[in-house]
Amino acid sequence: MRNLINIGVIGYGYWGPNLVRNFSEIPEVQVKTICDLNPKLLVKAQSRYPTVKVTTDCREIFTDPKIDVVAIATPVSSHFDLAFKALQAGKHVLVEKPLTTSSQQALRLIEEAEKRNLVLMVDHTFIYTGAVRKMREIIANNGLGEIYYYDSVRVNLGLFQHDVNVIWDLAVHDLSIMNYVLPSEPVAVSATGINHVFGEPENIAYLTLFFESNLIAHIHVNWLAPVKLRRTLIGGNQKMIVYDDLEPSEKIKVYDKGIVVNGSSESVYQMLIGYRTGDMWSPKLETTEALLTEALDFINCIKQGKRPVTDGEAGLRVVRLLEAATQSMKKQGQLVEINLVEVAA
Amino acid sequence: MRNLINIGVIGYGYWGPNLVRNFSEIPEVQVKTICDLNPKLLVKAQSRYPTVKVTTDCREIFTDPKIDVVAIATPVSSHFDLAFKALQAGKHVLVEKPLTTSSQQALRLIEEAEKRNLVLMVDHTFIYTGAVRKMREIIANNGLGEIYYYDSVRVNLGLFQHDVNVIWDLAVHDLSIMNYVLPSEPVAVSATGINHVFGEPENIAYLTLFFESNLIAHIHVNWLAPVKLRRTLIGGNQKMIVYDDLEPSEKIKVYDKGIVVNGSSESVYQMLIGYRTGDMWSPKLETTEALLTEALDFINCIKQGKRPVTDGEAGLRVVRLLEAATQSMKKQGQLVEINLVEVAA
Amino acid sequence: MRNLINIGVIGYGYWGPNLVRNFSEIPEVQVKTICDLNPKLLVKAQSRYPTVKVTTDCREIFTDPKIDVVAIATPVSSHFDLAFKALQAGKHVLVEKPLTTSSQQALRLIEEAEKRNLVLMVDHTFIYTGAVRKMREIIANNGLGEIYYYDSVRVNLGLFQHDVNVIWDLAVHDLSIMNYVLPSEPVAVSATGINHVFGEPENIAYLTLFFESNLIAHIHVNWLAPVKLRRTLIGGNQKMIVYDDLEPSEKIKVYDKGIVVNGSSESVYQMLIGYRTGDMWSPKLETTEALLTEALDFINCIKQGKRPVTDGEAGLRVVRLLEAATQSMKKQGQLVEINLVEVAA
Amino acid sequence: MRNLINIGVIGYGYWGPNLVRNFSEIPEVQVKTICDLNPKLLVKAQSRYPTVKVTTDCREIFTDPKIDVVAIATPVSSHFDLAFKALQAGKHVLVEKPLTTSSQQALRLIEEAEKRNLVLMVDHTFIYTGAVRKMREIIANNGLGEIYYYDSVRVNLGLFQHDVNVIWDLAVHDLSIMNYVLPSEPVAVSATGINHVFGEPENIAYLTLFFESNLIAHIHVNWLAPVKLRRTLIGGNQKMIVYDDLEPSEKIKVYDKGIVVNGSSESVYQMLIGYRTGDMWSPKLETTEALLTEALDFINCIKQGKRPVTDGEAGLRVVRLLEAATQSMKKQGQLVEINLVEVAA
Repeated sequence: MRNLINIGVIGYGYWGPNLVRNFSEIPEVQVKTICDLNPKLLVKAQSRYPTVKVTTDCREIFTDPKIDVVAIATPVSSHFDLAFKALQAGKHVLVEKPLTTSSQQALRLIEEAEKRNLVLMVDHTFIYTGAVRKMREIIANNGLGEIYYYDSVRVNLGLFQHDVNVIWDLAVHDLSIMNYVLPSEPVAVSATGINHVFGEPENIAYLTLFFESNLIAHIHVNWLAPVKLRRTLIGGNQKMIVYDDLEPSEKIKVYDKGIVVNGSSESVYQMLIGYRTGDMWSPKLETTEALLTEALDFINCIKQGKRPVTDGEAGLRVVRLLEAATQSMKKQGQLVEINLVEVAA
Repeated sequence: MRNLINIGVIGYGYWGPNLVRNFSEIPEVQVKTICDLNPKLLVKAQSRYPTVKVTTDCREIFTDPKIDVVAIATPVSSHFDLAFKALQAGKHVLVEKPLTTSSQQALRLIEEAEKRNLVLMVDHTFIYTGAVRKMREIIANNGLGEIYYYDSVRVNLGLFQHDVNVIWDLAVHDLSIMNYVLPSEPVAVSATGINHVFGEPENIAYLTLFFESNLIAHIHVNWLAPVKLRRTLIGGNQKMIVYDDLEPSEKIKVYDKGIVVNGSSESVYQMLIGYRTGDMWSPKLETTEALLTEALDFINCIKQGKRPVTDGEAGLRVVRLLEAATQSMKKQGQLVEINLVEVAA
Repeated sequence: MRNLINIGVIGYGYWGPNLVRNFSEIPEVQVKTICDLNPKLLVKAQSRYPTVKVTTDCREIFTDPKIDVVAIATPVSSHFDLAFKALQAGKHVLVEKPLTTSSQQALRLIEEAEKRNLVLMVDHTFIYTGAVRKMREIIANNGLGEIYYYDSVRVNLGLFQHDVNVIWDLAVHDLSIMNYVLPSEPVAVSATGINHVFGEPENIAYLTLFFESNLIAHIHVNWLAPVKLRRTLIGGNQKMIVYDDLEPSEKIKVYDKGIVVNGSSESVYQMLIGYRTGDMWSPKLETTEALLTEALDFINCIKQGKRPVTDGEAGLRVVRLLEAATQSMKKQGQLVEINLVEVAA
Repeated sequence: MRNLINIGVIGYGYWGPNLVRNFSEIPEVQVKTICDLNPKLLVKAQSRYPTVKVTTDCREIFTDPKIDVVAIATPVSSHFDLAFKALQAGKHVLVEKPLTTSSQQALRLIEEAEKRNLVLMVDHTFIYTGAVRKMREIIANNGLGEIYYYDSVRVNLGLFQHDVNVIWDLAVHDLSIMNYVLPSEPVAVSATGINHVFGEPENIAYLTLFFESNLIAHIHVNWLAPVKLRRTLIGGNQKMIVYDDLEPSEKIKVYDKGIVVNGSSESVYQMLIGYRTGDMWSPKLETTEALLTEALDFINCIKQGKRPVTDGEAGLRVVRLLEAATQSMKKQGQLVEINLVEVAA
C-alpha cells in the first residue's frame, strides 16, 4: 500500500462533511473524491476543499484505482448497495450507522469483506467518545458490581427520517453503546411506538431488552420532544452511573449508592432492604473528537490488517436488535427473540 | 352534622403524620384519634399532639359515634378491609393511594359509599398541586393542540415496598395525573419490568399505554436509581409541556415548539416536515401544600354532599390500569386491554 | 445542674419556631417558656406546644430560677439588651446571628459571659451543616493546596429587613462560613452597595475582603434577585471547591483542576501557564439538620463547661467584618481595615 | 468600490480563524491575505484556505491596493499600531476587542477614521448575538421598568493573558454588553482584584460601577474558576432578566417578579415591602452566529458609508471603563470617576 491513503466519500449531506473534515486532519490520508447526487452540496464541498474532485456518479470512486477506501454517509436504504460495490471494487469500507437495513445484508457485507481481506467498519461514533470508553472500562473492571439495568433516553425535536423509523435513527446509538459497555447481549425485546405523521415511520419508540441474567435494558427515543435529552442510567448492585452526554464536562458520574439486602428480617417472609449512599465521582474524560479517534482507528486497522472495534459483526448485532424491535413494535410490545444465527465461518 | 368534624386517622407511619398535620390546620376539623399497630409511633404521635387519643385498635375509631371521618394511611393490602369497615360504620373515608389491591374491591367500596351516601375519596395527592391543576387547565383550554404523547419518569433510590410492586407504589401517581390532565383514557397497556431482590416484587417497570386516538403514554418507575427524577413531557401538535416536579419554582414549562407537516413535498410520496420553535413560558403556580388543598376539598365535599375530584371512581380507574399493567408485565410486554366493566348503577 | 435543662425562647417569628422545634427533640431539654411581643404568634406557639408557658414579658424568663438557658431570636437591634440581661440573670445564652449591632456590644457580652462562667453562643447555623464541616475538613487537610480565593453569592427575592442592611442579614452567613473554613482572617475590606427603597437600608452589596496572604474573598448579597442562588467557589492552587447549598445532595464538588506555572517560558519575561484538569469528587455529607447539631452542641457545652465553635469570639469576629464592610460601603468602596483590638483577657 | 470586497486578516491565533471563516461565507467578500508572525499558523491557514495568500509581514496587506479592509486579531498591545497603519493606508478596519490599551489611542483611531471617512469597528461580538439584542429590545421597550442593577459573572479556567489583566480580557465583554443594553452609562467605578502568578497581571477582578441614577452594576471575572459561568442578572422595578449564555436554548429568562413598596405601613417610619411573583417567559432568540451577523453589518456599513453599532466610540467608551477599573483596582477599591472627555468634533 502507498504511504498516502486515498479516500472517496459518498454522501455530503448531514454527516459527510464531518467525515471529510476529520479525514482531512490525518496527515497520511487524502480525501480524493466526494460524491453526492445533489450538485448544490458538491459546490459547497468544492468551495471548502478546492483540491478535491467532486462527482455525482459514485462509479468514479469505485473505478478509481488510486482510491483505497470508501466512506459512505448516505441514507440507510443505500448502504448495502454502495458498500457491497465498494468491497467488490476492492476498497476498505466505512459505513454510516446503521450498517444496513437488514441482518441478511449485513451478513453479506461481512462475508464479502472477509473473503477479500478488506476492513469493514460501521460508524458507531459514540463508541469512540471518552465517556463511552470510560464506562466500558469501569464496568469491565467490575466497578459497578453485578449490572442490574441500563436505561437510556435520547429525545429531541427534529430530523424526522422518511426511510427509517426513530429506532433505526436514534436507538441505534444506544444499542451500539449498550452492546459495547455491557458484558452480555440481549436475547429478546419488547417494543412499542407510534407515528404522528400519516404515512411516515414511527417517531416515538420505547424498547425493553431482556437478557439471560437478571438485567434489563430500556431505550426511549423520540423525534418530537420539546427539549433535548441524552441521559443513560446504568445500575449495578454496588455502584451506578449517570451518563449525560449534554453535560459540557462531567458527562459521567459514578454514584456509590445501592441497596443492602438482609435476609434476617423481622418477618420471616420479608427481606430487610437498606439503602447505602456514599461519594459521587466524576472521572476525567478523554476529549478528542470521537470521529477523529474513529478515523484514526480505521486507518490503523487498514494499515495493520486488524479488525476495528466497530466491525461488521458489531454492526450486524445492532441491526438484529433493530429488526427485532421494529417487529415487536408492529405487534404493540409482543416479545420477539433476537435471531442468533451466527455468521458462517 | 356538628360544626366540628372529628377525624380518626389509621396508620401513623410515613404518610399518616402528614394527614394529621394538615387536618390539624383546618379550624373546623379535629383529629380525635390516631391508630397504629406500632406503639412506638403512637408515643411519637402523642408527644406531638398531646390532646389526641391514641390506640392500637382501630375498632375504637369505627365505634366512636363522635368520629365522622376516617383517614386511612396503612399498607395497601389493608385498604379495602379498613375502608369497608369504616363505611359500614357510617364514616366518610379518605384512603391512601392506591385505593385497593383490585378493581373488584374498589367497586365494592364505591357501591357501599353510594348506598350509604358517604364521601369516598382516594388520596391522589398530586391532583391537588398547583402544577397538575395548571396542566389540566392548559390542556382543557386546548393550549397544546391535539395531544400526541405523555411521557413520565419517576425514579429514585429507596422505599422498596414488600406487598406491592413499583407500579402500584410509584406509577400510581403518574396514572392518576395522566387520567386527570388528558382528555381520554387508555384502552390497553404493554408493560415490562424486573425484580432485583429475590422473592420481592418488581422494582423497575416500564408501561406503554395505548389510546383510541393517535396518543401514546409511557411511564418509567424505578426504586433503584442513583438520582431522583420526576419529569413528565406532554407533547401536542401545537405546544409541549415539560413538568419537572423537582424544580423549586418553574415546575411547568410550556414550549411553543412542534413540527409543520406539508404534503406538497418535492417527492410525491414523502411529507415535508418543518420544525417550529417559539417562546417558552412558565406560568405562576399556586403554592399551597397539596395535601391541605385536598383535605379542605374533602371536608367541603362532606359538608356539601358533593363528590371529590379524586372520588372512588377515579381510584377505580387507576386500579384497573395497575392491574392490567401488572398482568402485562408478567407476560413480558404482551398487550393487555383495560377492563372497562362499569360500576353498576 | 439538674438533669433536665429548661430553656426560655425569646422571639417566635421566623426563626424562633425552628429553635423550639429542635430543642424539643432533645430528650434532656425542655422548652419551658416562649416570649414574643406579638400575641398572635403566642397563640400559634401555644396551639403547637400546649404545655409550654407563653408570655409577652421577657422578664418572666429572666426571673424564672428554673430556666437555665435563654435562646434569643429577635430583631438584631434587641440582641445585646436581651442577651446582656439574660447573662446578668445567670442564664446561658444562644443569640441569633448576627450577635450584636456593634463590636463594642459583642465585647461586653463576651466579658459578661466569661465573668459569670456562662456559655455564650451565636447561632451561625451553617457552621453546623455537613457541607460546611466537610469543606473545613478538606481545607484543614490541605486538600486544596494554598487557598487563592473565596467567592460567594447569596441572592434571592425577599425578606427585606428594616433595621439592618443586606450585609448584616445575608453576608453574615458567608462571613461566618468563611472564617470557619479558611485558615486565616481578612485584614481589610472594600464594599459597595445600594438601596432601592427610599429610606430603607441597602438591599444589594458587594464585599471584597483582603488577607495578609495572596488570598482574596468576595461576597455578593442581594434581596432583590429573580432567582435564588447560594453558591461558593473556593480556589486553591491544587484543587477547587464548588459549594452549592441548593443542590439536594451533591452540595460539595471538589475539582482537581488548576494551573501549572512554568518559569522557563520561551520568552524570558513571561510565565508559561498550563491548565490541569482531573476528576471531580463529591463527598458524602452528614445530613442531620444543622440546627439540631447546633442545639446538641450548645447543650453539651453547657453540661461540660466547654466553649462552642460559634462562641462569642466567633460572633465578634463576624460583627467586626460587618461593621467595616458597612463603613466602606458608605464611602463607595474605600478600603477599611479590620479593627483588630482584641478582647481584654 | 469594486463589487468584491477584499480583506486582509492580521493574526491567525485564537480568534483570527473565526474571522476568516465567517468572512469567507459572505459571497461578496474575499479573504485575500492572512498575516501572522508564527509560520506554523500560516501553514495551517494555507492548508485550510489554499487560495489565500499568507505572509509574516503585515506591510504586504497595508500596501496591497486591492485590499479594502483590514481585520486585526492580534494581542491587544499591537491593536493601535496596526489599526492606525491600516487607516493611514486607507483601509476600513475591524479591531478585536478591546479596541486599544488606552483611551488616548482610541481617540486617535476615531479621529483618523473620521478624517479619512473610513469605517472603524470594534469586534464586541456579543452585541451581535440574539440574546443581547433581545435584552436591549426588552429594556428599550421599558419591559423591566426602572433598572435597579446589572450583575454579571464571567469565570472559567484558562487562557491567562500576559499583556493585559482579566478585566481587559473578560470584563470587556460585560462592559460592552452593559453599555449596549442599559439606558445610561456609569460615572464611577470601584474595583478590586488580585494576581496569583508572580509578575503576571491580575487574574481575578470585581468591578462595581456607579451611575447617576439609582442603578448599580457589578462584574465578576476570573481566569481561575473550576467551572465555566456566564450569567447576568438585570433587575428592574417591574421585571427581571436572567441571561445565561451557557444555556443551549433558553438563554434569556424574563421573570415577572419584584417588590411592592407601600408607604402606609403600620409604623410611620417604615416601608411595608411586599413581594410579587408572576410568570416567567423565555423569548425565542435569533440563532445566527454572532460573528457572521457582525461581519455582514461591517460590510454593509462599508458599502453604505454608515457607522456600525460597535464603532470606535463604543470601543472608546469601554476602554475608558477598563482604564478606570484598572486604576481603582491598583488602589484596592478606591472610587475612580470615569473620564468623560469627549472626542473632539
